[in-house]
Amino acid sequence: MSTNKPRIIILGAGYAGMMTSKRLTQQFAPEEAEIVLVNKHNYHYQTTWLHEVAAGTIDVNRSRIMIKDVVDTNRVTLIQDTVVNINKEEKTVELMNDQLSYDYLVVALGFEKATFGIPGMDKHAFSIQSVDSSRLIRDHIEYNFAKYKNMDNPSEDLLTIVVGGAGFTGTEFVGELAERIPVLCKKYDIPRNKVKIIDVEAMPNVLPGFDEELADYAQRSLTARGITFKLNTMIKEVKEDRVIVGEEEEEIPAGTIVWTGGVQANHIVGKSGFELTKGKVNVDPTLRAPGHEDVFILGDCAWVMNKDTGKPYPPTAQIAIQEADTCAHNLRVSIFGGTLEEFDFDDKGQVASLGGSDAMGRVFDGRKLYGMQAKVMKHVVDDRYLYLLGGPKLVLKKGKFRPF
Amino acid sequence: MSTNKPRIIILGAGYAGMMTSKRLTQQFAPEEAEIVLVNKHNYHYQTTWLHEVAAGTIDVNRSRIMIKDVVDTNRVTLIQDTVVNINKEEKTVELMNDQLSYDYLVVALGFEKATFGIPGMDKHAFSIQSVDSSRLIRDHIEYNFAKYKNMDNPSEDLLTIVVGGAGFTGTEFVGELAERIPVLCKKYDIPRNKVKIIDVEAMPNVLPGFDEELADYAQRSLTARGITFKLNTMIKEVKEDRVIVGEEEEEIPAGTIVWTGGVQANHIVGKSGFELTKGKVNVDPTLRAPGHEDVFILGDCAWVMNKDTGKPYPPTAQIAIQEADTCAHNLRVSIFGGTLEEFDFDDKGQVASLGGSDAMGRVFDGRKLYGMQAKVMKHVVDDRYLYLLGGPKLVLKKGKFRPF
Repeated sequence: MSTNKPRIIILGAGYAGMMTSKRLTQQFAPEEAEIVLVNKHNYHYQTTWLHEVAAGTIDVNRSRIMIKDVVDTNRVTLIQDTVVNINKEEKTVELMNDQLSYDYLVVALGFEKATFGIPGMDKHAFSIQSVDSSRLIRDHIEYNFAKYKNMDNPSEDLLTIVVGGAGFTGTEFVGELAERIPVLCKKYDIPRNKVKIIDVEAMPNVLPGFDEELADYAQRSLTARGITFKLNTMIKEVKEDRVIVGEEEEEIPAGTIVWTGGVQANHIVGKSGFELTKGKVNVDPTLRAPGHEDVFILGDCAWVMNKDTGKPYPPTAQIAIQEADTCAHNLRVSIFGGTLEEFDFDDKGQVASLGGSDAMGRVFDGRKLYGMQAKVMKHVVDDRYLYLLGGPKLVLKKGKFRPF
Repeated sequence: MSTNKPRIIILGAGYAGMMTSKRLTQQFAPEEAEIVLVNKHNYHYQTTWLHEVAAGTIDVNRSRIMIKDVVDTNRVTLIQDTVVNINKEEKTVELMNDQLSYDYLVVALGFEKATFGIPGMDKHAFSIQSVDSSRLIRDHIEYNFAKYKNMDNPSEDLLTIVVGGAGFTGTEFVGELAERIPVLCKKYDIPRNKVKIIDVEAMPNVLPGFDEELADYAQRSLTARGITFKLNTMIKEVKEDRVIVGEEEEEIPAGTIVWTGGVQANHIVGKSGFELTKGKVNVDPTLRAPGHEDVFILGDCAWVMNKDTGKPYPPTAQIAIQEADTCAHNLRVSIFGGTLEEFDFDDKGQVASLGGSDAMGRVFDGRKLYGMQAKVMKHVVDDRYLYLLGGPKLVLKKGKFRPF
């Protein structure tokens, strides 16, 4: 260590990592701790907006924020590098180009696609998982439209988009496609009825875990705008140009296949020897890795138990952001003493966008919102995070809803 | 025939076909002739702007004009269909969905890629030949950039663009790429030096046929902006991901391969039994097909001899437009008598765009222009055609240079 201050390293600049960086600068005076943030890119991105990048309804740059624009670089050392391994015993992090030692570590490396061993899914399906992977989906769809228009006897299958999973991301993504495809059809002179959007979900309803009334609303709204749902249907296999689904092994030819059906912790977490349960680490109520009082695991790398239900909280941006508060507090306590805080989720509700001006959701008081009212609330939710992160200036620059 | 007026059918709504339609409505009163324009699309496009569509420097819609917006549909019957065959003896044209008989025919079906039997060129190289094929190039390049960014160990070869031919189209295209690639690099976070643009030309200099001083200027300007020229170099073979060039059979791996090295008449012309010389029909000085007094062949389907040099004129939009005047006059003479006019090219000079604000060329009085001055002239030339076609309104709507 270069100083005698305790060094806290945060791995990953997603929702959890960014908010933890910010909270740590508030919890600690400059002389009390050294704070290091390691990230693959020099930007943070809004994971919850990536389905819009993938559909092409927002520009890539709307979804990302330069880290140095919102993190106080006088207080936080930024290192742009890729994590290769965490050595818990030596308390070091191996990066592609460097090695760092830590006193405390915050693992917030985000999620990866979990394909549950479905043959071909890893190879042939796209994933809405980073700025780069989402932009690739957008460009792939447009490229197929361009190819279709330039072929002598094109197959309409090239225009078909199959989405695996009708959870939050899958549903929001097809909602954006419902808006985007008519625009692309116009741009490429392709009749709208030639483009099929099919969402395949193993559960009997869309948005499993959501209130049934809201999920029904979503399904009806999306069906009315041309999305076909195949519910109660498992994907058996994915090939380069088709998906095989259901017990009858129906083949659905498709030009674009996107998997939104499952996520797991960044593979670095398992590789570094943290025990995984269903792909993530079951952290203790103070958000520390079991057996490692110096390692906090946040966001999509962790399962945090909901004591009331006995089940883990579903992973959302809202939870990741709130975890940062608990983590920062507990880091201060770990270093300077006091009482560790247990994570307590303050559920502010959840709103899903359905594309265009439609949305639906539930707000903190349990009220259900539909349509434009829900859409406005969605924008408020999106902007609240930007406000927490970068104040009114960031809302003005990157916000969805510009109240100023 | 549905009327007893002579029916003139124009095949193709490119520069020659559009201007012929317009000139015929001026040459003939409504009761004197029936005018039919057959085209594959409901739009006309600026072939000379397609290299910009292919590079992505202008939007597709800037390059096209709805035919009905500029052709008087009270006078000209528009048929959107694809020509399958011309039966010269029966005086009929077979379309995909119809058959038409004519008294006089104007063949202005444009060009196709001529690959001179280079193995793999037809299959693996793109061509700047229509709105659809040009847009596909743009989308292909962007898709490669997106793929590169989303790969674990991407090869920089994916970013390499090889252009075959440094004639007018090839040179103008690499000029647009010189402008476009830095923008794409910024958009996709790719360092500019990872992208190679290589233009392979069999002749010892770029722009063969152009004034040497001007061609040198173009080569220097483009080289300075990152284009690599391989002159005196034949393309031997094209594979999916590489081009094999020169006597040493050097392999150039590339993600995008575009052929601009040769064009020939639309294949319908040869298929219908017109005799081809180097891929086109040698028309007589009145622009009629040899042996067929009722068939005029214009634009890129024809070679028109320059009596002064004994060589055919190089095919340009300017020539196509002027041919329409001669063709319309000679159609009137054919029907009502008089003296057939021989085509006489009024050379107004030629300006090549080199991308961005650079250009070079020669104007009608032989003066050479460079840089911004040439660029302005290029816009004037582009807009002059729009003016001829659709008057000031069209210049205002689609023009490059808006003098109003």
